[in-house]
Amino acid sequence: MVLARKHLIKVAPYQAGRPIEEVKRQFALRNVIKLASNENPLGPSPKALVAIKKNLHLINRYPDANGFYLKRKLAQVFNVSLANIVLGNGSDELIDIIVKAFVEKDEGIITSEGTFLEYKIISQVHGRKVTTVPLRNFKYDLEAIKKKINPKTKVVFISNPNNPTGTYVTQYEIEEFLHDLPEDLLVVFDEAYDVFIDVDDFPKSLELVRNQKNIIILKTFSKSFGLAGLRIGYALAHPQLVRYMEIVRQPFNVNFLAQVAAEAALEDKEFLKKTRQVILEGKNYLYVALNKMGLAYVPSAANFILIDVARDGARVFRQMLKYGVIVRDMQQYGLKDFIRVSIGTKEENERFIRALKKVLQY
Amino acid sequence: MVLARKHLIKVAPYQAGRPIEEVKRQFALRNVIKLASNENPLGPSPKALVAIKKNLHLINRYPDANGFYLKRKLAQVFNVSLANIVLGNGSDELIDIIVKAFVEKDEGIITSEGTFLEYKIISQVHGRKVTTVPLRNFKYDLEAIKKKINPKTKVVFISNPNNPTGTYVTQYEIEEFLHDLPEDLLVVFDEAYDVFIDVDDFPKSLELVRNQKNIIILKTFSKSFGLAGLRIGYALAHPQLVRYMEIVRQPFNVNFLAQVAAEAALEDKEFLKKTRQVILEGKNYLYVALNKMGLAYVPSAANFILIDVARDGARVFRQMLKYGVIVRDMQQYGLKDFIRVSIGTKEENERFIRALKKVLQY
Repeated sequence: MVLARKHLIKVAPYQAGRPIEEVKRQFALRNVIKLASNENPLGPSPKALVAIKKNLHLINRYPDANGFYLKRKLAQVFNVSLANIVLGNGSDELIDIIVKAFVEKDEGIITSEGTFLEYKIISQVHGRKVTTVPLRNFKYDLEAIKKKINPKTKVVFISNPNNPTGTYVTQYEIEEFLHDLPEDLLVVFDEAYDVFIDVDDFPKSLELVRNQKNIIILKTFSKSFGLAGLRIGYALAHPQLVRYMEIVRQPFNVNFLAQVAAEAALEDKEFLKKTRQVILEGKNYLYVALNKMGLAYVPSAANFILIDVARDGARVFRQMLKYGVIVRDMQQYGLKDFIRVSIGTKEENERFIRALKKVLQY
Repeated sequence: MVLARKHLIKVAPYQAGRPIEEVKRQFALRNVIKLASNENPLGPSPKALVAIKKNLHLINRYPDANGFYLKRKLAQVFNVSLANIVLGNGSDELIDIIVKAFVEKDEGIITSEGTFLEYKIISQVHGRKVTTVPLRNFKYDLEAIKKKINPKTKVVFISNPNNPTGTYVTQYEIEEFLHDLPEDLLVVFDEAYDVFIDVDDFPKSLELVRNQKNIIILKTFSKSFGLAGLRIGYALAHPQLVRYMEIVRQPFNVNFLAQVAAEAALEDKEFLKKTRQVILEGKNYLYVALNKMGLAYVPSAANFILIDVARDGARVFRQMLKYGVIVRDMQQYGLKDFIRVSIGTKEENERFIRALKKVLQY
């Protein structure tokens, strides 16, 4: 029998948020809400839906391998060139492309504990060395990360704002961090939640890219424009870095409907505005409700909140399922007494609080 | 500046078929037909389109990471278990998953010259050794491939029917080939064009999978059901092989619309029948027309024909563009005097022949 590559046996695969249909099947429930995967609670961008319907008859054709129209639109929006952009089948695939393109077999990556798990999993799948540094007050500890950098370190992955804690590193902290880094070290800012930012000191990462630093920014249409199901993310970087990533990228990695939907969504400023408003209002509602319950949580710059339930979070997660509310248990992230809840619509947030009160016996 | 991994510099990226929109832009043409990427000329499966429209409002949710409903349907169709199936973002991604899962850094793959280029490109991207064996009468030379197998060979990729020649290896030839192979060697049959087969001696590869051999079959919805733009392929293999591939597969690799479209398409027997009919009729028409022109071609078991134009094929390809007909030049495949034409609708095939006559000055 064929054997897999030896190091793979040790990889713990990613556990996705439970799908609504699956929970309905398991508990024989008719009405289930999912606040587990930081999805857009308003649904997809209406302009994206119009574009999809208009192009549906063309899905027998392979997608444009160059993603010309979407990249042209992105280039306009960010005032960059097409040569600064790589499209991915979600940001997940771009992480894979980065590891493939830049990390040699005897080299490794550094990231934080308590962060998006795919940096670690994807690097492990490639058999690359992974170093993780503990969070400090639920935040990336850039000083400690910097101390761990050695000549074999090729990439530092920074989730900013950080999933699942909702904290962010500031412009000042990033400047300090980037100062005096090795010349051949790549820093990746995964800004999947950037549209929810409502602070002034968030890093201006695009300026760093413009200044030709060894920086890659990852962004996605999953949360902001409600296109998680279509899989479309992108990287912004110096053309030299893009060139390498393009060698590795498969030609038809981004499906055609994702390309047309994303292009149209970028015009949907109305939807983005409404999304931000719902998330900010929902966040305030949840803060107040959690305060009243005396539960600690981590203030969030994103569209989710990490809550300290002061008992086994996996158990709370399972009990919430019975009330038809899917949240995320944090065991995989090493945060055992926590759950993460995505901010939903007003009704979803209220239902979440009602279920949480029952489960915690308030 | 960050440098890419050294071996990447040598990789020649895949050149996709020219998109219709791009050719319209370049030559200021209004009516362009594409017979370059072996797409379904009838468009997408109507049942798939209905399923997409019905599920469109749900694309703000991440896809089911387990692909439960689609795998259940595939398991019914092929009379296998869910544990025999891996879903991919097109077969391209499954090739990547296979190389990642099974080929260690000092190991390599074997395939043919004049075959689908991604086996070679993807293996090269991973820095794996690639051995290619010349075609024999435009066909995979399994005897010569067998002779090249050594203890470091981990995977043999066989495109069957072969793209771009349209030839196939038979049940008998496969049995001969599989006899006495090393125990830890994996044989991958890429059957992207299987639905167009109209011969009796095509290998019963699924029986080989059932007999627990080291076999992986790749299939796709791109051609048969007209879903190339959505990106959905799948692998059928022994559960032990599937388990390894699942460690490597990213959870959200297959988008949600691809999953629902593919599930519905499997019910669309009417569309599949019509597709086969149009391809077989078109093939006969093209054979007759090419015979009349005195042009040699390779008889094809698939939905495309490799034509010997007896002069620089790349030049013929470029001249055909001016008439609004996109075919495929074969330089990348080492077949300089050839073009490959995908079989289209009746009107498309006739237009192709008219343009070819003008270009070749008949």
